[in-house]
Amino acid sequence: MKPALPPSVLRALEALFPGDALLVSPEETAVFGADASRKHASPAAVVRPESTEQAAELLKLAHLERVPIYPRGRGTNVVGGCVPLAPGIVVSTSRLNRILDISTDDFLCVCQPGVATGDLQDACKAQGLLYAPDPASARFSSIGGNLAQNAGGMRAVKYGTTRDWVLGLTAVLPGGSVLRTGSRCHKDVAGLDLTRLLVGSEGTLALITQATLKLIPLPEASASLLAVFASEEAAIGAAKAVFAAGILPTALEFLPAEVLFALGKLGPTPWPDGSKAALLLAIDGSEEAVRADLSRLLRAVEPLRPAFLQKARTPQDEEALWEPRRQINQGAYQYGPDKLSDDIAVPRGSVGEAVRRIREIGRGLSLTILAFGHLGDGNLHVNIMHDASDADQARRALDAKQAVLEMTIALGGTISGEHGVGLTKLAWLSRMRGPEAVAAMQAVKFALDPHGIMNPGKAY
Amino acid sequence: MKPALPPSVLRALEALFPGDALLVSPEETAVFGADASRKHASPAAVVRPESTEQAAELLKLAHLERVPIYPRGRGTNVVGGCVPLAPGIVVSTSRLNRILDISTDDFLCVCQPGVATGDLQDACKAQGLLYAPDPASARFSSIGGNLAQNAGGMRAVKYGTTRDWVLGLTAVLPGGSVLRTGSRCHKDVAGLDLTRLLVGSEGTLALITQATLKLIPLPEASASLLAVFASEEAAIGAAKAVFAAGILPTALEFLPAEVLFALGKLGPTPWPDGSKAALLLAIDGSEEAVRADLSRLLRAVEPLRPAFLQKARTPQDEEALWEPRRQINQGAYQYGPDKLSDDIAVPRGSVGEAVRRIREIGRGLSLTILAFGHLGDGNLHVNIMHDASDADQARRALDAKQAVLEMTIALGGTISGEHGVGLTKLAWLSRMRGPEAVAAMQAVKFALDPHGIMNPGKAY
Repeated sequence: MKPALPPSVLRALEALFPGDALLVSPEETAVFGADASRKHASPAAVVRPESTEQAAELLKLAHLERVPIYPRGRGTNVVGGCVPLAPGIVVSTSRLNRILDISTDDFLCVCQPGVATGDLQDACKAQGLLYAPDPASARFSSIGGNLAQNAGGMRAVKYGTTRDWVLGLTAVLPGGSVLRTGSRCHKDVAGLDLTRLLVGSEGTLALITQATLKLIPLPEASASLLAVFASEEAAIGAAKAVFAAGILPTALEFLPAEVLFALGKLGPTPWPDGSKAALLLAIDGSEEAVRADLSRLLRAVEPLRPAFLQKARTPQDEEALWEPRRQINQGAYQYGPDKLSDDIAVPRGSVGEAVRRIREIGRGLSLTILAFGHLGDGNLHVNIMHDASDADQARRALDAKQAVLEMTIALGGTISGEHGVGLTKLAWLSRMRGPEAVAAMQAVKFALDPHGIMNPGKAY
Repeated sequence: MKPALPPSVLRALEALFPGDALLVSPEETAVFGADASRKHASPAAVVRPESTEQAAELLKLAHLERVPIYPRGRGTNVVGGCVPLAPGIVVSTSRLNRILDISTDDFLCVCQPGVATGDLQDACKAQGLLYAPDPASARFSSIGGNLAQNAGGMRAVKYGTTRDWVLGLTAVLPGGSVLRTGSRCHKDVAGLDLTRLLVGSEGTLALITQATLKLIPLPEASASLLAVFASEEAAIGAAKAVFAAGILPTALEFLPAEVLFALGKLGPTPWPDGSKAALLLAIDGSEEAVRADLSRLLRAVEPLRPAFLQKARTPQDEEALWEPRRQINQGAYQYGPDKLSDDIAVPRGSVGEAVRRIREIGRGLSLTILAFGHLGDGNLHVNIMHDASDADQARRALDAKQAVLEMTIALGGTISGEHGVGLTKLAWLSRMRGPEAVAAMQAVKFALDPHGIMNPGKAY
């Protein structure tokens, strides 16, 4: 395989990234060509910058030489966002991995993009501070990836998504110009909000090299509740009752009958056989607030006559209570060896309708489709179970995915609640946003990246 | 005075805006030429669209004919953002003033930009829902203006600023293309975040004609606390102790000695003469949480030995407790007939330092400068009191403003915490953000508004 980069570019990269900061052999670069979408393409080179200055030199070179740049965190992206479609340079943030500051006075932290989200959460927690965004991948994904995708997660009901926690960024534009957006201030409205333009831009505008993130006091206490119901309507009704009771839970997850059944196959489960739906809720706050909110939660869901109810007040018990939620992925394979996943969101009041329609789509195509997840913000994970070795099933799975996205758009929903568009949903963006919005996105992209070198072929 | 618009444009406007939807006589348009900055310029015309379609036709015309467009809410802007510098068309949102939907299922409302923020808050409250952004101007300002400026307010400590509450927008671009950004979903990450690009853009990119805003369950209870201290250090220390106790208040306001003294001149005040600083705090949540947090607040501030402490648990008592905060503007005039105001923010931990330095600046220039306000998020309102009829004082006031902004930037702060840049702070933006960021803003502006018709001469 010939190197896809001109020799002059390769020489410049060698000068800029000494030693193993530059990888070019296919054996070494291969692992940087895929992400959790299981799509793959071969990088022409992989670089591992250690500073903003180095990143700036790289983007100057790439801009001049029109070489595609693929920013890469820890590759947990499930929509192909990290895949280097055209021959180009993968920029790994693995050596931009330091936490630079955690300030208990300013209530913020400053870190490089390669820091694992879970590590940052832990470091903040040790100082009595909360960094609330908590994507399911937090242990494996990096802050940079979370920023690029505006990662969500279970706590978004109460705490919002990554973008709500960003005070400022350092980012390098194509051409090497270094932007410093925002500040260490909790309020800052001077000029266009470039910070939030970059958050969620899926690496298509700039390379983020540093982030200043908002923190809040760590809540003193938390509690969780598992409520299992004899009907799906009761579960959806209970979720509504929780909000109506004035409670904003940190997490409010939904598990349908298909998931409960599959979990029963994995091992003993505490709820009655034939249960039709479950809610998993978490709350946090002061000790007194949590105690009061837990009683209130119980009072709110009881009129819906849960068949099983279990509360947890210690970290260990909460951990155990949430175990079924973590087992869903494993349980899903009860229904087929392969999974086509999606990540839709609908208006909060339409979750019940969406779940019903998804089930009908599955029934019509003789496939089991699991729709579960973040009911609290209308964000459903959709697993279309099938056997990919059966061509007809594989085709039906794709049809199901199409039908689910059509249904989502019809309900006023979005094709991505938290995973982003990447490669795999590109065809759907214009359908959902309309050509005017996509044209505006492309105009903004062209303004900042006129040669289109940043993560080309992704997002919009 | 000759009309500044070509006759063909005027004729087109007459066709598009029948009757009094178009104003052209200087008598009628004059009032649309100023804002709360007290700057003024004469609009060539004022139009009052009633629909997105009408606004789209207008922006098509203005784009073709290169006529400046000045979006205008209720003119409460204090930085000259509404002032029609070059001859052009002021677009008043006064007839786009309907609340279209308040959904207790989806936890959102949909409204037009001309709705007064306070009216929207009230309408949501009546349904048990909270729209949390609460700029001091809420009774007078409009949602459209709040969006354009990313308005903040006292509750931002806990609830963030306007941008954190926007799920989607309808906005018209120069040329008449209608963008629909976001959705009714609480999570939505498909494509660039055009929603937040428009929020805070000060009318320089597009004309917002509709907004979908997030709501949360109305907190059941609230409480307030006034704590007055014998030293400024104690007050700042108490604020720190509140956060350290794990409490995130809805509001945390700071009143320095100068303000307490001035309020004493307006009428009887409950605190001891010679008090040096006060904190005003509010908390909200469930009845139990508020009760517990209030005790916790008291325990947190007591070690700082407040000279006066008063709590309020009923709406009436809270209203009374907050009265001194509302009287600051009136009280300020004890120190001089004229006021030069500013709106800075510094990192939360630097508020004490900023207050001290501002006082020194005042002392050095023999002026009283009041620095008070949103300590909880580091956002200080700065009133430089002087007598403008005295040329020397007027010059010193301007010097003071300059010195305050210099000091702010030196502390890593921002030249605007919540008022925006508008006209009056334009010269400072590049100093603070750096030329790279300003160039990026201008590139984005050019991409969406190539002829520069949207609120020209403002923001960046």
